Amino acid sequence: MSERTEDGEGPATGPASPRLVLAAGTTATAAVDGLSAAGADPDLRAHTPSADAEILEYGRPVRAPVVPVSPSGCPTPAVVTRAVRDLLGFETAVVDAGLAKPTAAPTVDVGARPGRDVRESEAVSNAAAVFEEGRAFGRGVPDDEVLLGETIPGGTTTALGVLAALGERETVSSSLPDNPVERKRAVVDEGLAESGLSRGGAAGDPVLAIERMGDPVQAVLAGIAVGCLEAGTDVTLAGGTQLAAVAALVRHDGREDPLELATTVYVAEDESVALDGLAADLDLSVTVTDPGFDGRDHPVFDGYAAGEAKEGVGMGGSLAVASDYGLPNRRIRERVLARYRRLLDSPGE
Amino acid sequence: MSERTEDGEGPATGPASPRLVLAAGTTATAAVDGLSAAGADPDLRAHTPSADAEILEYGRPVRAPVVPVSPSGCPTPAVVTRAVRDLLGFETAVVDAGLAKPTAAPTVDVGARPGRDVRESEAVSNAAAVFEEGRAFGRGVPDDEVLLGETIPGGTTTALGVLAALGERETVSSSLPDNPVERKRAVVDEGLAESGLSRGGAAGDPVLAIERMGDPVQAVLAGIAVGCLEAGTDVTLAGGTQLAAVAALVRHDGREDPLELATTVYVAEDESVALDGLAADLDLSVTVTDPGFDGRDHPVFDGYAAGEAKEGVGMGGSLAVASDYGLPNRRIRERVLARYRRLLDSPGE
Repeated sequence: MSERTEDGEGPATGPASPRLVLAAGTTATAAVDGLSAAGADPDLRAHTPSADAEILEYGRPVRAPVVPVSPSGCPTPAVVTRAVRDLLGFETAVVDAGLAKPTAAPTVDVGARPGRDVRESEAVSNAAAVFEEGRAFGRGVPDDEVLLGETIPGGTTTALGVLAALGERETVSSSLPDNPVERKRAVVDEGLAESGLSRGGAAGDPVLAIERMGDPVQAVLAGIAVGCLEAGTDVTLAGGTQLAAVAALVRHDGREDPLELATTVYVAEDESVALDGLAADLDLSVTVTDPGFDGRDHPVFDGYAAGEAKEGVGMGGSLAVASDYGLPNRRIRERVLARYRRLLDSPGE
Repeated sequence: MSERTEDGEGPATGPASPRLVLAAGTTATAAVDGLSAAGADPDLRAHTPSADAEILEYGRPVRAPVVPVSPSGCPTPAVVTRAVRDLLGFETAVVDAGLAKPTAAPTVDVGARPGRDVRESEAVSNAAAVFEEGRAFGRGVPDDEVLLGETIPGGTTTALGVLAALGERETVSSSLPDNPVERKRAVVDEGLAESGLSRGGAAGDPVLAIERMGDPVQAVLAGIAVGCLEAGTDVTLAGGTQLAAVAALVRHDGREDPLELATTVYVAEDESVALDGLAADLDLSVTVTDPGFDGRDHPVFDGYAAGEAKEGVGMGGSLAVASDYGLPNRRIRERVLARYRRLLDSPGE
């Protein structure tokens, strides 16, 4: 990753490089029972991406009426990413990738709308337009390098959906400790049938795969990734299997550029996920980070150690940047605790 | 202003405090001949706030098809603010205060729309709703302190408009070296007549003053300022007479809290502007910054030294923060030059 420069002649990328571009959106697929842990209550789940964007930008929810913390006390990975941002000051851009609820976070408009249930015939009706808007944004962003992250409840199921539509290895992670993978497969099978697609039926056509079996976050991120690569901007996919699905979309668009996937040890070591195999299929170099949350005897860390949440909101990517800058894990953990305490103090509006 | 803290217990405000909240919007008043220098060509002027927001967020225009540099080579003050941001890494939030053209900058939505010509009966038809949305945003922002800045071509005329409607001292600055103040007064007189308002006719009613004689940026900033003060957040008005007009709106809402106005020497020393008198009327403490642009023999600095642009996009406020952090003017000037060179290399899309 790029070195920080502050002189007048070096890359003028601001106080720390790279920039984190976060696509925040929703899909009705999240309302399918038993698929997601992102937001404890299904009614409140639709607020989670809006709240995650606010935590990244302000440190806590502002307009969103939820604090994304699981019943066991495990907070959204947005808290970890924000903690790293506190310490490094990297810049961000949140893209509205189909938010369903208001957010006080500043967002870039690329015309995305909330996604439909993948079991319907069309999941993202304007996938082509959103992909092209994302691509134009990616071509225009002047940074030398970007991290691409996501927040979308139900996103591992839509990741499985596009992998199936593209004919790639069908493996995904989960925000739940026990991955409900059979439930996801049943949803994807139903979606393929309803969409009139066979497995691999959208090979070479990433927009079709998203339109029929994906979500608007994928349309945004695949478009931005392709636009960045066209402009010579380095791309790091900051996340787990959802970002690997974005990589698959980029590969099926014909881009053979080097792509890095930076994710957490919680995804990489999950035995229900064959991340190495998928990464090899897609020619991704994988960076795995471990923030040392094990054995800390505190709810903020125990959940992650037990396999909750695992990844999201660019957590793995921001930890990889922290490692590049030589930031000790101890300082990150202290900052995560400080952010967590403030999060519990803030009920939103 | 707040000290930077990085420990786990101090104010968790990120890498540098305060946050700059930029309201970016438009008013049809800018199309009146001879009022504004913000954007050399009237047709392109409507793009200036979109471009300024992009320069603040990315360092250069991304989606906006303009580079806001005057015919003499004097760049938008956004370049100065961005240069300081490069060096200090303070956080930002751009609020869409009625943008007329697309921007790739992330923006907060408070329901603002482009303002109409103040010579019409209603200049900002939804002023009350926008003020309340801004107020809710200001109450929610968790920072200890915010800087409020603006970018809106034609904004000194609408500043004169609300000062007249409120019955305050009618003095404003200009982005032109020779302030076309008689032209502005004629526009304001016409607007008051068309609005059925006498001078001082909106005293004690800031929303009425904005609705009849103002612009959407004022509705956003006055609302945010009031909300911040209600929540105990310190407010620094980062700008010249346009921000003094916002202060007048806050005072006419009944708020007597301490308010700081941080502006540049180019506004403060302009003999056509009675800033000290207006500040005294409104009980503002004024901080004046001088970045030492005089006698540098370079177009980027000569324009400011000759009275072009003068202020905007939070320039005076960001220079005041730089001074608080002990950042030498020499480093700011070097960084401005580096940013300027990159700006001229980037024609946008």
